[in-house]
Amino acid sequence: MDCTVRDGGLINDHYFDDDFVRKVYKAISDAGVDYMEIGYRASKKILSPDQFGKWKFCEEDDIKRAIDGVESKTKLSVMVDIGRVEPQDILPCEDSVVDMIRVATYVKDVDKAIDLVKEASDKGYETTVNIMAISRALDNELDEALEQLERETKALAVYIVDSFGALYCENITYLTNKFKRILKTKEVGMHAHNNQQLGYGNTIQGIIDGCNFVDATIYGIGRAAGNCPLELLIGFLKNPKFDLRPILEVIGNEFIPMREKIEWGYLIPYVITGMFNEYPRTAMALRKTKDKDKYLEFFESMSAMEID
Amino acid sequence: MDCTVRDGGLINDHYFDDDFVRKVYKAISDAGVDYMEIGYRASKKILSPDQFGKWKFCEEDDIKRAIDGVESKTKLSVMVDIGRVEPQDILPCEDSVVDMIRVATYVKDVDKAIDLVKEASDKGYETTVNIMAISRALDNELDEALEQLERETKALAVYIVDSFGALYCENITYLTNKFKRILKTKEVGMHAHNNQQLGYGNTIQGIIDGCNFVDATIYGIGRAAGNCPLELLIGFLKNPKFDLRPILEVIGNEFIPMREKIEWGYLIPYVITGMFNEYPRTAMALRKTKDKDKYLEFFESMSAMEID
Repeated sequence: MDCTVRDGGLINDHYFDDDFVRKVYKAISDAGVDYMEIGYRASKKILSPDQFGKWKFCEEDDIKRAIDGVESKTKLSVMVDIGRVEPQDILPCEDSVVDMIRVATYVKDVDKAIDLVKEASDKGYETTVNIMAISRALDNELDEALEQLERETKALAVYIVDSFGALYCENITYLTNKFKRILKTKEVGMHAHNNQQLGYGNTIQGIIDGCNFVDATIYGIGRAAGNCPLELLIGFLKNPKFDLRPILEVIGNEFIPMREKIEWGYLIPYVITGMFNEYPRTAMALRKTKDKDKYLEFFESMSAMEID
Repeated sequence: MDCTVRDGGLINDHYFDDDFVRKVYKAISDAGVDYMEIGYRASKKILSPDQFGKWKFCEEDDIKRAIDGVESKTKLSVMVDIGRVEPQDILPCEDSVVDMIRVATYVKDVDKAIDLVKEASDKGYETTVNIMAISRALDNELDEALEQLERETKALAVYIVDSFGALYCENITYLTNKFKRILKTKEVGMHAHNNQQLGYGNTIQGIIDGCNFVDATIYGIGRAAGNCPLELLIGFLKNPKFDLRPILEVIGNEFIPMREKIEWGYLIPYVITGMFNEYPRTAMALRKTKDKDKYLEFFESMSAMEID
């Protein structure tokens, strides 16, 4: 699954223009990728359209305008955050261009996630549940959440989301085995962040261990250190249905110029938050100041925070 | 083992100034890293000092000038290439500031490597053998080379060198197990390249599988896509003797400005050569042309080359 526009939107408040989204959709479609997540679905009563671009809301007409006329077998997904979407924002699936709704949740919010999954699956969508910040989940609470998701939802897959880029391959194996053991009727998904340059390596490890839903973004675009790069993942997957070439072309034409203007990827402050198993918020703030390359001072400030 | 100056020298023809080398040496020493490879040792009769900076030759006086007065427990290493060094270039160890000599070899040159190792170990140096381009070695020839190295050398370690950045974690496990099986009296080493962002991930995999000599460079500097970043590796290793802070400081002060002038790291042409299990020569040449971001054309040219 490609998450370029959805996760990439986290670094520009979802202000991609239609032309860019169309080019991504065309590249993803031509590459033979199964799903593309085109943004978030959120309520304009809860979040202000003055503060976010259209891909934070993914209204049906906006999606249609961007993809209209592109030949594609790629299914479309939107992500929903708990508390930011209302039932009326989710049309019956047959009236929507969206095929899949993915519910992002913390372990503690699993009951709310289950309600949202029910809302979406009752309306005919494929669904997944993406468990964020899993590197901070308590093991017993995670077990319980997985047991509930197995029992109480029709989600196709439940995702391991390494929001902080803090996991090593051993942790991936541990978590994938746990998910497989509890989620007998569902697939396991992997959404990795690249703080420690392990986004791709951990995704491969997940595949080896049995994850069958895996997320990536073109050129690794995404919040802070970004994600598993799609171009690498396609290189690893042996399925002949995938074609790397459209991805290579759109990287050169769109992502190299964009990277000159917006920052993401391997940057030391994100390494440090990854090592500390912290949300990259402080590192993102640092990168907007003149001290953006004062790594030692940032490390010391994180170390001080850890004393608790 | 830090290879910053040695592998980094491959992108500037070994023209680092003394001040830079001293700062690296100080950071590596303060970080508690066991070895620092400060360059190549080569014969000035064979290679012209007009074409390479001093770290291609590592004359004793040049090393001394750069490290003089820095407090350090870090041992020094130089690398030797077969056919580029003569016996008289290798002083007796007690007359040298160098502690270790590492012999870089292809599988086919293992007999010559054995001679060079003998030369160095007879003169009192610690030695390793670094088997380059291992992703192209024939399995039976590799086995034979390892058996010879086990029988006929005093090398402390034999390295898996993924010169093309082509290996996946499964290959690392396969090779490490093979090395451990054959090299009963030696350690296994890992030197990974970062073409597919697996330099660090594969090094971790090597450590898990039993590699006890592992190479890295500060901020991943090195030929083409570069190497396993030392700052990440120190984050993973739990040994309290290591201190990440001096490395973070030197990255901000030296490597960020240097990266503005010299290019290395994650660049799509190096991804492509890695996927094709090719030396990055063609990609390095491409990056010096105006077509440097024409990835699709480069991919097609590599595909065409592969038909053989």
